[in-house]
Formats: sequence, C-alpha cells, structure tokens
Amino acid sequence: MKKLYLYVVGLILIMVQFVNAQVIYSPNKVTTLTFKVTDKGEMFYSLKYKNKNVIKESKLGLELLDKFPLTTEFLVENFDTITVNETWTPVWGEVKQIRNHYKELMVNLIQPMIKHRRMKIRFRLYDDGLGFRYEFPAQTEVTYFTITEEKTEFALTGNHKTFWLPGDYEANEYEYNVSKLSEVNALKALGVNEIFAKTVIGKNYVQTPLMMKTAEGLYINIHEAAQVNYPAMNLKVDTLNFVLTSTLVPDAYGNKAYIQTPAVSPWRTVIVSDKATDILASKIILNLNEPCKFEDVSWIKPIKYVGIWWEMHVRTALWSYSGLYNIKLDQVDWNNVIPHGLHGATTERTKRYIDFAAEHGFDAVLVEGWNVGWEDWFGNWKEEVFDFVTPYPDFDVAEIQRYAKSKGVKMIMHHETSASVTNYERRIDTAFRFMKQYGYDAVKTGYVGRIIPRGEYHDGQWMSNHYVRVVDKAAKYKIMVNAHEPTRPTGLCRTYPNWLACEAARGNEYNAWSHGNLPEHETILPFTRLMGGPMDYTPGIFEIKLDHWIHGKTEQVNTTLTKQLALYVTLYSPLQMAADYPEAYENYLDAFQFIKDVAVDWDDTKILEAEPGDYVTIARKAKGTENWFIGGITDENARESNISLSFLKPKVKYVATIYKDAADAHYKNNPKAYQIINETVDSNSKLKVKLAEGGGYAISLKPLKK
Amino acid sequence: MKKLYLYVVGLILIMVQFVNAQVIYSPNKVTTLTFKVTDKGEMFYSLKYKNKNVIKESKLGLELLDKFPLTTEFLVENFDTITVNETWTPVWGEVKQIRNHYKELMVNLIQPMIKHRRMKIRFRLYDDGLGFRYEFPAQTEVTYFTITEEKTEFALTGNHKTFWLPGDYEANEYEYNVSKLSEVNALKALGVNEIFAKTVIGKNYVQTPLMMKTAEGLYINIHEAAQVNYPAMNLKVDTLNFVLTSTLVPDAYGNKAYIQTPAVSPWRTVIVSDKATDILASKIILNLNEPCKFEDVSWIKPIKYVGIWWEMHVRTALWSYSGLYNIKLDQVDWNNVIPHGLHGATTERTKRYIDFAAEHGFDAVLVEGWNVGWEDWFGNWKEEVFDFVTPYPDFDVAEIQRYAKSKGVKMIMHHETSASVTNYERRIDTAFRFMKQYGYDAVKTGYVGRIIPRGEYHDGQWMSNHYVRVVDKAAKYKIMVNAHEPTRPTGLCRTYPNWLACEAARGNEYNAWSHGNLPEHETILPFTRLMGGPMDYTPGIFEIKLDHWIHGKTEQVNTTLTKQLALYVTLYSPLQMAADYPEAYENYLDAFQFIKDVAVDWDDTKILEAEPGDYVTIARKAKGTENWFIGGITDENARESNISLSFLKPKVKYVATIYKDAADAHYKNNPKAYQIINETVDSNSKLKVKLAEGGGYAISLKPLKK
Repeated sequence: MKKLYLYVVGLILIMVQFVNAQVIYSPNKVTTLTFKVTDKGEMFYSLKYKNKNVIKESKLGLELLDKFPLTTEFLVENFDTITVNETWTPVWGEVKQIRNHYKELMVNLIQPMIKHRRMKIRFRLYDDGLGFRYEFPAQTEVTYFTITEEKTEFALTGNHKTFWLPGDYEANEYEYNVSKLSEVNALKALGVNEIFAKTVIGKNYVQTPLMMKTAEGLYINIHEAAQVNYPAMNLKVDTLNFVLTSTLVPDAYGNKAYIQTPAVSPWRTVIVSDKATDILASKIILNLNEPCKFEDVSWIKPIKYVGIWWEMHVRTALWSYSGLYNIKLDQVDWNNVIPHGLHGATTERTKRYIDFAAEHGFDAVLVEGWNVGWEDWFGNWKEEVFDFVTPYPDFDVAEIQRYAKSKGVKMIMHHETSASVTNYERRIDTAFRFMKQYGYDAVKTGYVGRIIPRGEYHDGQWMSNHYVRVVDKAAKYKIMVNAHEPTRPTGLCRTYPNWLACEAARGNEYNAWSHGNLPEHETILPFTRLMGGPMDYTPGIFEIKLDHWIHGKTEQVNTTLTKQLALYVTLYSPLQMAADYPEAYENYLDAFQFIKDVAVDWDDTKILEAEPGDYVTIARKAKGTENWFIGGITDENARESNISLSFLKPKVKYVATIYKDAADAHYKNNPKAYQIINETVDSNSKLKVKLAEGGGYAISLKPLKK
Repeated sequence: MKKLYLYVVGLILIMVQFVNAQVIYSPNKVTTLTFKVTDKGEMFYSLKYKNKNVIKESKLGLELLDKFPLTTEFLVENFDTITVNETWTPVWGEVKQIRNHYKELMVNLIQPMIKHRRMKIRFRLYDDGLGFRYEFPAQTEVTYFTITEEKTEFALTGNHKTFWLPGDYEANEYEYNVSKLSEVNALKALGVNEIFAKTVIGKNYVQTPLMMKTAEGLYINIHEAAQVNYPAMNLKVDTLNFVLTSTLVPDAYGNKAYIQTPAVSPWRTVIVSDKATDILASKIILNLNEPCKFEDVSWIKPIKYVGIWWEMHVRTALWSYSGLYNIKLDQVDWNNVIPHGLHGATTERTKRYIDFAAEHGFDAVLVEGWNVGWEDWFGNWKEEVFDFVTPYPDFDVAEIQRYAKSKGVKMIMHHETSASVTNYERRIDTAFRFMKQYGYDAVKTGYVGRIIPRGEYHDGQWMSNHYVRVVDKAAKYKIMVNAHEPTRPTGLCRTYPNWLACEAARGNEYNAWSHGNLPEHETILPFTRLMGGPMDYTPGIFEIKLDHWIHGKTEQVNTTLTKQLALYVTLYSPLQMAADYPEAYENYLDAFQFIKDVAVDWDDTKILEAEPGDYVTIARKAKGTENWFIGGITDENARESNISLSFLKPKVKYVATIYKDAADAHYKNNPKAYQIINETVDSNSKLKVKLAEGGGYAISLKPLKK
C-alpha cells in the first residue's frame, strides 16, 4: 500500500513536471529550446546552439495597467508542437524563394486564480535561431488592456563583444558603438548634436537589432519581427550579469501598448550561428512576418534612381526657395516672393536629372525641396509645415510630368512631414491623389523632428501604426514607399512589399555635414539595421572629398570610391540611389558603369565573407539573368579578399569586370584611386582582391557571349 | 538755476508717469480702465464700474519655455486710443443687429533688455465691461515660442457669491456650485462618477464663464472670447485675497500654447453691471470675435428638430445593434450578427420621426446609433471605434433619404468620435462626402471619453484647433455643426455661423440617468455657459417622471412641464430640439403647440427679469414677424413673475397664449399640471404669472388678425 502510494505520488510529480516543461529541437537539431513554468507560475525559456548555451534560463511576461500582471500564477494547459517546412516567393528580394522550416511549440497558459485568464506563447525554432511571441486570445474577461512593460529576458552567457546603438525612444541615426556588454554606456548619446529628435532612455539601454559575438566565436543577433500595433523594443543591459531585459517605447502617459484581443506581440528573435555569414543569410525575420497582404503586386517594382538631394546635403543648393522665415502656409503669395537663388528643386535642374536618368538607364528621379514650407520646416515643433501639394514657383509639376514621360523616366515624390504626423494624416489622401494626377508612383516620406501628436515618439505604438497605415493607404493608390526617420524595420516589407525601403539608421548623408560614418560603419549595418529590411543608404558618392564642391569644406565620405560601388551589393535594397551629382558621375563614367549595370532585385545571394565591424563580401545573381554582382568592403584596415566563384554556373565562361582600389588608394588620402580590370572566369576560379584602408571592390560577372 | 533744475526733474517725472500709465473711459463713461507699467516693468490694469472697483490693480503677463518671461522689464513705447461705434448683422441671433461701441487702448510694450522684444496689450472698454488680449507681433527675434503659463490676474474686491464649476482640463458637464469665493473647493469633483473624462486641476481652480455677485449688488462675469489656437483658461482662486489668476490647459509636456508670430491670445472678458439682466444682454463676447469668415451664408439655417435620442437616455432603446463586445471595425460581418432587438436607429423608427416632424413642422430629424461601433464605443481609449459611413443593417440610409425628402424633412447626421480625434480627422472628408451624398447638411459631433492623441485634453490648444478645423471644413461642404463635449464656447459662432450650437455643459440628458439637474440649473446656465454661445440643451421633456417609460425608474426631470416650454426662450439657441418621444408629445398636443410655434431665430430680445440661481424671464421677437415669445423660469422656489409688455408694437392687439403651471403644480409631486390661457394684450399690458416650485411659463404673442 505504501509502495503504491509512493508510486502514485511519483507519477503525479512526473506528470506535473511533464506538463510544465517542454524541450524542442530545430529541424536539424542544431538549436534546442527549453520552456518551463515554475511552481510560482513564472515562465522561463532557454536556447542552445549545437549544445552550447546561447540564452540561459530567462524570464517571460508582461506588466499591465491596473490589472494583475502576466508574469506569474500561470499553469500550462497544454503544449502543441508542429513542424513546418514550406517555401514562399517574395515579390522582390535577395533570393528567388525563401524556405521557412521550423519546429513550433505553442504553449497554452492559464492563470487559474485570475479568472482563468489565458495567454499563449508561440515559439518557432529554426536551425539558425528562434522567434517567439505572446498571444492574447479573445476572452470574455480579457478584451481591452494596457501593457505598462514587457519583461522578456535574454540571459546571455558572458560579457560578449557587442555592436550597439544607445537605447532611444525615437533616434536610430547614431554611430555604432563596439564594446563589451559591461562597457555599455548609452549616456554618451546625450552629446550627439547632429540628431535633432532623440530621447535617450538611460545609461544601460541599447537598441535592437543588437549584434553580439561571444568569446567562443558564436554570433548572436537579437531583434524583433512584425512590429505591428506595438511599440519598438529596447533592451536594458545588466552589465554585471549580462541579462538583457526588454523595455518598450512609451506614450505620453508612460503606457506602452493598448491591446484589444485577439492580439499578438511582435516576435522576439534570436539568430545564432558560429559563422557570421549565416547571420546575414538568415531569413528568420522575414519568415516570421505575415505573407503579402496584397492580391495584385504587379505595380511594385524595384527602383534605381537619381535625384536632387546630395547638393542640399553638401550645401551647393537649398531645399528652400527664399530667405523668408516664420511662414504661415496659407498666407504667402509665393509668386511675389524674392527667391534666394539657391533653390535646388527647379524645373531646369530636374530636367537635367531626367536627361541623366534617361541616358544612363535609371528608373526614376527624386526631387526634394519641391514644395512650399522649407523656409522654416525644422525645429519649431510646428504643426502646419507642409501641405504636400503646393510647388514652389520655379518647380513646374505639369511640365516635369510631361518631360519625364517623354523620356521614359518616373518621378519620385517627396513628403517630408517634419514629424507633424497629424498634419500629414489629414492631408495624405489629397497628397496621394496629387501624386497620381502627376504620374508619381513612389514617395519618399520623412519624419525629421519631434513628433506631433506631442507626447508620442517615433518608435511608440501610435507611430508604428502610422507607418503601416501610410504604406497600406499608399497601396490603395498603387504607390511605393521609402520611409526616412521611421522606427527601424522588422521585416514588414514581406507583408507590405510596396514598402521598398526605409532609412532608420545613419545613412551616407552624415558624411556630408558631420564627422561622418567610420569606415567600419557599413560592415556593421548588415548585421544590425539591415536585419529588419532594406535600407535607403544612398551610396554611390564619387567625389569623396567635399571641398570638390565647396572650397574649404572639410567633410568627406569615409570610404574609397570603389567601396561606394561595393555598397550596392553589400547593403541590400530593392531601392538604390546613385546619390552623387550627375556632374560627378560624368567625370568617372568608367566606374559609373558598375552602378548602371548593378541590379536591384535578385534570384540568389551568397554571403562569401563577413565579420561585423571588419568586412563583408557578398555575391548576388541578378533577377532573371545569369549575371552576378559582387561587393566586398573593409573597415579602416586594408585586407585581401579571397573568394571562390564556385557559385557560377558550371562550364560557363564569364567576363568579370573588377572595380577595385588602386594599390596606393586610401580612404583618407587617396580615395578616388581605382582600377578597372576585365578577366574571364568560371566556376573554378578563385579571386584575390586587395582592399585599401576604408576600401572596397565591386565585380560584375556576365556570361561570355559566344 | 536750482529752480530750473527742479522744474526739469518735475517734467521728467510727469513724462515718465505719463508714458507708463493710462486711464480710459467707456463711451458713456460707465466703466474706467487704468493701465500702468511699474518701475520694474511689470504690467497692471484695473477696472471700475460707475466709479466702484470691479477689478483692483491686477498683474498681466505670460511665462515662456526656455525664454525670459513676458511679465517684467517692459516699457511702454506708446499708447494708441480709438473709439469705435459700429453695428453689424449676425447671420442668426438674439437680435437683428448688434452694436459694437467701445473705446480701445492699445499698449505697445517693449522689453529693451530682451533684444527689444515687443508685445502689445489691446484693451476694449465697453459700458458693460472690458475685453483685453495679448498680441505678439512678428519680429526677427520673436517667431516661435512656447507659453508655459498665462499669468493674468483678476483681483476682486471681496468674497463674492460665485456660481462656479470645478476647474478641469476637459470636463464641463458638472453641476454648478454656488458659494462664496472663500468656499471654493473643486476637489469634490473627484467624486463625480457620471462624467467619464475629467481631469480636475486642484482644490482652488474654477472654470469660466465665472459668474459672481458682490455684496453691493454688482454682477460680474469673467470669461474669454475667440479662443483660437490657444488652450482654454481656468482660474485659480486665492481664497484669502480673492485674486483670480489664469491657468491654461496643458499638453502632454505640460506646455500650454505653441505660438508662431504674429499671434494674439483670446480676449479676456469682464462683463459688469448692477443689473443682472444687463449681463445676459451683453454682446461683448460676440463683438470681440472676428466677423463671419464665409462669403456665402445662404446655406446656414437655424433648425428645430426631433430625433432618436431620448429613448437611449431613458433606456427603452440602445445605440448598439447587438450584444457583441470587443469589436474590430473591419472584422464584423454585420449582416450575420444577431441583433439584440433594442436598437433605436431603425429605418422604421426613423420614418416614424420623419412623419412626426413633417406633421408638426419640424425642420429635421437627428438619429443617433445609426452606424456600426456602438457595441464597445466607450471607455476603452480605443482609436478605431467608428468609421462614420457604415450603417447598421437595419438602418437604410438611401431609403431614409428618399423618404425624408418626400416629406420635406432634413436628416441630421451623428458623428460620435468617442474622443478618438485622430481617427475622426483621418475619416472626416469621407464622412462629410457620405453626408452630402445622402442629403445631410448638419452634423452633431460628440467627444465622449479620453482624447486620442493621448496626452491632449478636450480644452487644450490642439483640441481647440480641432473644433475650429471641423467647423471650417464642414463649411466647405456646406454642413452645419452641433458639437457635443467640446471645450466651452467663446463666441466663435460669429466667425463660423455654421457652428450653430454646442453642448459643453450639463444638458437635459443628465436628468435621464443621474440625480439630474437641480431646478436652479437652468437659471444659472444663461449667466455662465451661454455667455459663450448657444447651447444644445435639448429641452422639451413632457414625460417628466421617467417611470412613465420604464417601470421602477426613479429618475425624473427636475422641472415642471411648462418650465420645459420656457427653456426654448430662456436658453437661446438657433438649434433647438424637441427632445421627448413623439408619443409623449401626442399625449399633450395643446402644450406641444408652443414648441411647434416658438421661433429659433430672432429680431429682438428683452431680458425682463433675471437673477442667477433664482429666475430668468426673457421675451424674444421672432425673425421677420411681429410674433413674440416669452419664457420665464424659476428655481426650486415658487414665485410670481411681473412683466410689462411695453416692448410690443404700440396700438396693436396681440393674442397671448399663456402656458403656465397649474395652481397645484410642483416639479417633484405634480410636474405635469399646467394651464393654457388665451388673452388679448397690448403694449400697455402687464402680466402676473405664478410659477410653481421648479416651474416656468411660456407665452406666445401674435398680432390679432383683423
């Protein structure tokens, strides 16, 4: 009897243990996820890669306004597991097809003491990492609630090397910091003057995507996927114990997210590999996003463009038309305003760009500063800055439409909102109708400044909804979007493929008017910002030293000329600008040929070499062709890139045109020294290319015509 | 020599005194304004009425964000005075023409030490009071700035009797408090549960319009005029010294107003008289507003209406269609939802109202609850509550349009925003187009709940701009507006005469589901809320005891039936509802005749008797006719009204139909006991009418047909 009793007790203990914990393995058993609920009803998960700890036991949960938290008193009702192995075809992308292969663990949780309140946590375990999210099913007792904080932990195994941006509610155009986790000090961001709207969270806060490297050589990337109707996540770093804890961007009341069930959080992602190249090749974030929302995507096309833009950053031209200040939109008679003569967006200059685009095969021309309001657009927290439909007197929209059409070139609209989002939302339908009336089918939006509604931040829930709302509305007009100064992307371009690109990081423009971007900057971007989606970095600056344009100007682009070429391949985007003046390109037409040739949409991608902060080399196969393009970049150190061309079609000869740094090139002293070499290669070829300090190279490969 | 020296010094002193102070008198020297700047450069004003102090020496000025304040270091550059005597014709109103007769003192101020920053204060002195405002001219050094507080003082002469509402950033539907200034305690507002969105400022804060009576029998009203692009003003009461100081409604950052020069503050108004009737007759607030902004006003018409509304307040019908909860706008298939059967806004019931309106000569029918979203519209701080264009399945918009048109009746649209203003602004053009498509030319808007953008308040600068933006946009569609739950009016209906009325105070609806409005309530409203403009109070409830509709319902309207009639005259509005059920009116067709007859637009108005909190008797002459209508009301005390009809056209006989309380009437015990008497009267007649406790009377006067 006693024996039976012990047996029963043992069985119950085993059962309790069984229902409250679960271990799953990724499809090829590379990664392992463990989930458990403790006796107190707290939830923990951990992640291993090849049997090594990546995330140690880490807490999960959320705190609510005026309600019992979603952190404790949970029981597991049951676990569901499935394995999914599917492929899907992106509208545009780095590869033709994307495989989505994971093991899913759905944990159905209940708080028996809190009116049987239910929550789910859905884990998707891939060979190269993990995604998980909170799910809030509709229940009688759980309809509307407010999240005051998300308490998701990522307990790391050590004091990793980390590539981090200061935690901030709205600014993401910082330089990257490279340090140990223990050395994170985000307060240095307070002294960054070139970013106008920033709200630094505190000393130990960092942004995602957060890239790390362990002492053992594991690469770990933490970010999120599908940030919809939810604020962005920053991470608080415990600099002693190396535990990262989520913190969400608040609203005016300090609340984080207003939830109506059924709802889900964004996916929290951990990408991991012992090879840096695998991090760049990972498709976890795209896979975790919802499929394309649109039936008809025939109107969505990748774009290579030029535009009236760099001259304003270099300051040979201005966005504004006049020396007026303190403008009220409806009270200026623009035809009687005396222009200052430096306005960039003139009909004449636009035609110059249209001619240039037509001659060199670009799809489109962007023009900034075309519409009234730029005289005092900035820094006044002003609501009625732009109306998005009134051109300056020297910008003839109808004539430009006619001329561009006659040349087979598209125009790209510019909507700088000055972060006055209420004003933009009021006027957006009128603005989109104006665009279609004049033949524009793509818009570059901008959000420079402090947000109106005052109290909201660029990365909060309300603004996150705004960005999606714009893209969704744009789709109704068949308009493509390139958003500058939004929250950083989380793969939503899968769901909304008209969202071609975002800025949301420190772009090439900083080289024009600040100390610029360090040579390592572009080797970090693919591991951080670009994990979430394409960036409109605007590469292609040939006149590296800006005193070429303005005598005495000390700024320069911190790369060699051929590194600028390489960026078209290493910084993936279906929207790429050739950002320099036409006059700059006309002086280097041989090097310019690469920009003319390079594709913006791809059937395949091979990450050949990569080390964050040091170098990146990528090969891509142009959509629907046998042409390949290679880009290789380095940081401030010279290096030799050794690559095999084994990805080429066997037994086919290719002409390789190699654009590389000259032997004496150096980004500081001799940035424009380049060589162009033609070679015949095949899939057995190996190439060695020397990169100068701050240098890079680009190769175009075309099958030899017989 | 010494003599000359003294002479020069004396002259300088005189000059200094001259340039830094000024006294002006109103056109008939009834009021006196004194303004001065002290040696420290501080600004003071004071106001006398018939040589008695009304406002003692009181400070002026504003505090700014990160800038030297506009409170001190001022010098007077010069004074300008003019006298204006003009008349203007309102689009609709209490009188046919309005006289605007004042002495203006413009004070041009300069802060020599603050880069010669300039500010102006413009005073307009009337025989019945004062208006003044701050003006911020455009200057190179003064373009954009932020007001953190306005420090306008009103130093009163004693511990006046005061009719006050608790100071609040958004709620104005409180009951009035009547107390000495020293007894103001606004914290009692914290316990008011029937108002959902309220933000009480603190113990000693009150709202405007603030009505006071001095021990000497002076009546003083403090409010503002033309609140445009500026938050509402509350007043902090110094309960020891009886100084009131302005405090403005903040935004999420605690800032009060974002200013771009040139700009002006609203007018601060002090209306004063030794006769209470003069306060009600004052046109200062309208006069201080800008003239009508529209060229064409032919489409603006006063409206008398009925509607599907009271049944929802009494609860025999519901705004909602079904028992659903937790709705997402675009995810409900309404045609497959099971209705709960209590939906008020059905096609059938609407036709009943159209028939009733047509039969009894009403202009229009309002229908609330016609559009999807009412199932969970309230209390969740939800952004996407309504779309303003999707009717419930049982409300056939096209059929109702056809039917209403066939009967010569207009429909009034209802746009409840649930205070989700961002959502409304996004959808408003579509909503207005929908209205015009279906023949609606008036809209009742509503702002119940906490404001989105979160961080803004109903009475802040951003929302003040919203209300005006809606009215201005509505005008472009030739739509008239009746705003419920906006900030309290400040006479803007002069500038935007399509803004027919507002709620913005405790309306008749509170009688349906709270302890109701005290019998004195309607005697205070004309001295407070109505000083700023017409109110949609929705009078005309005949079934005073609500257990008539629902057995066991204990609420009642706290008036007699004939007091409800009187309100059509005593509570001026060009938009008047007959708020009860058609079925209620059909039981009392003789009394209903007054509501059918009474005008909603007037050529003349005579305030016959008035004492705030006690009684009001007003006579008005209907537009373009010789018909007069009189309304008289009392508080909880019975009284006898003694009026002379000397305002009637001499030598003309009139038929007076007198609707009055029966001898045994009492608002509590016998509220529906009334008498209707016909008499023949002329301009020599005097009338005595007895009013029951909580009672009132109404008289229609028509020239006797020969």
